[in-house]
Amino acid sequence: MNSVFSFFSPRDKKFQPLFERDIRNLVEISESLVKTVSEENPELRNKHFKETERLEQAGDDISHTIFLELSKNFITPFDREDIHALVSAIDDIADYIYATSLNIELYRINSFSKEIVELSALICNMCRHLETAILELRNLKNIKIIADICITINKGESEADSLCNTAIAHLFESETDAIELIKQKEILQSLEMATDKCDDVANVLESILIKNA
Amino acid sequence: MNSVFSFFSPRDKKFQPLFERDIRNLVEISESLVKTVSEENPELRNKHFKETERLEQAGDDISHTIFLELSKNFITPFDREDIHALVSAIDDIADYIYATSLNIELYRINSFSKEIVELSALICNMCRHLETAILELRNLKNIKIIADICITINKGESEADSLCNTAIAHLFESETDAIELIKQKEILQSLEMATDKCDDVANVLESILIKNA
Amino acid sequence: MNSVFSFFSPRDKKFQPLFERDIRNLVEISESLVKTVSEENPELRNKHFKETERLEQAGDDISHTIFLELSKNFITPFDREDIHALVSAIDDIADYIYATSLNIELYRINSFSKEIVELSALICNMCRHLETAILELRNLKNIKIIADICITINKGESEADSLCNTAIAHLFESETDAIELIKQKEILQSLEMATDKCDDVANVLESILIKNA
Repeated sequence: MNSVFSFFSPRDKKFQPLFERDIRNLVEISESLVKTVSEENPELRNKHFKETERLEQAGDDISHTIFLELSKNFITPFDREDIHALVSAIDDIADYIYATSLNIELYRINSFSKEIVELSALICNMCRHLETAILELRNLKNIKIIADICITINKGESEADSLCNTAIAHLFESETDAIELIKQKEILQSLEMATDKCDDVANVLESILIKNA
Repeated sequence: MNSVFSFFSPRDKKFQPLFERDIRNLVEISESLVKTVSEENPELRNKHFKETERLEQAGDDISHTIFLELSKNFITPFDREDIHALVSAIDDIADYIYATSLNIELYRINSFSKEIVELSALICNMCRHLETAILELRNLKNIKIIADICITINKGESEADSLCNTAIAHLFESETDAIELIKQKEILQSLEMATDKCDDVANVLESILIKNA
Repeated sequence: MNSVFSFFSPRDKKFQPLFERDIRNLVEISESLVKTVSEENPELRNKHFKETERLEQAGDDISHTIFLELSKNFITPFDREDIHALVSAIDDIADYIYATSLNIELYRINSFSKEIVELSALICNMCRHLETAILELRNLKNIKIIADICITINKGESEADSLCNTAIAHLFESETDAIELIKQKEILQSLEMATDKCDDVANVLESILIKNA
């Protein structure tokens, strides 16, 4: 296990700035999702989708850079497995948000249920909290902030489950067009998966806290 | 690699009882599933669902405790990666069983095909075998029991594949209502995924045997 | 990290031949897929499916053997985590190809869209490239070959995404039979997932290059 000392070592200048770029990019992806599901004009919505796509690729590049650094560096600020899990989970959140936006385009969805709008706002909120927590990894001086955010994320994930389940039950009760049901169900489920992955990030943060604080 | 010695070290008192609580809880989840698909009365069925939900959350707490112990303890009875894989796979089985029960509720399914009943019984049986194997991890005195169970689980998984495939082929041949088809297909697939994860547990057990026996 | 020296150690005679058998088997699985989607006669097509099934099980056995060797051997030609990730990703490619062929059988699909044929050919091409790269792991004398293949695989994966998205958008525009739409969508998505997993193999190869070259 790495000592706290390593936070002040020169190595740290490599990883922490990359984590911060990665989570900033994710916040922007989640903001782009909120804009997408709030936009009634299909052409303007397509612009938000293109932006999500660009950001998702930028996120892939950041993940890739971090994995390369992991391969090259023997000393890392946290356990290698935690860094790998952290970056993979952030990448997964981005992937599920992108998949949602892509499906909105592919399925030509033009109106968004209350639950889709609420889930999108919830994800964006969770990503902003995760950014605050990751900025705290810089020095781990205020670990209570990180611990509290982990609890908030955990509650958010339960709320998302509940929102998604209600929406799906409602869909199967009221939607008689099977193709429309498939579309809506898939969008709800990819949003819900994004919140699951936010919870994975919170779990890694908790593991980092225990080992390093 | 950890020596057998570690089994008799005080550390062992931490992990083995947690593994046993985890697998006991899983057996109860699987019994709850069998009750769910055998119950014709929707209100009584909902009671079994609530019980599955409670147990799934209890299982999440046990996994969480084990992961925290892994972060805190430098010495573990088995390789850390094996413990992580074991607990994750048990958690995945619970998740797929819970997803099945949840979908039965959300989709308001009231009658269960022969294959769904058989797959549920098979999963319950596999979970009971896994419990026997995990109890044997206590002292690894009788590794043949564990090895035999791994073979049984492997056969069970193949049987589940075959059952599920037959049921899905039959569904696509005979079901003309697309929404009904979606419901049944998803339930069959989450049951089949649960058996895949039982097989993952057996694979981890085999890896533990090789390293420690 | 392992030194290049280990390549010339006796240990190496264990893993490299297994990697080569594994990737050869995968190339044959992918060739079997191409034959499946090119065959108009259902009985002959079923023969190709049976062959895919046999090869997929052979691949499972090879993966299993490699995982057992990993458990037994303390010294490995590459980092254990890279070997695990490499073999798991090859296994995942095989699983998605097999799932595609299985669904073609279960859903009794008799005609294949241009995109399904193109995706299958693309996967087969990617698997052949991966074989060339894995043969180069023997001595790592010509790492540029591996690096170039990683780029090719990466482009192939993007091309597959684009092909799959176009096909799915087209499906939702033109297919009015929901059950037919479910069948086609699932086949396209399992093919696309296979190309994602090819990209995972390329990423592991890149990680091995960085650490060992």
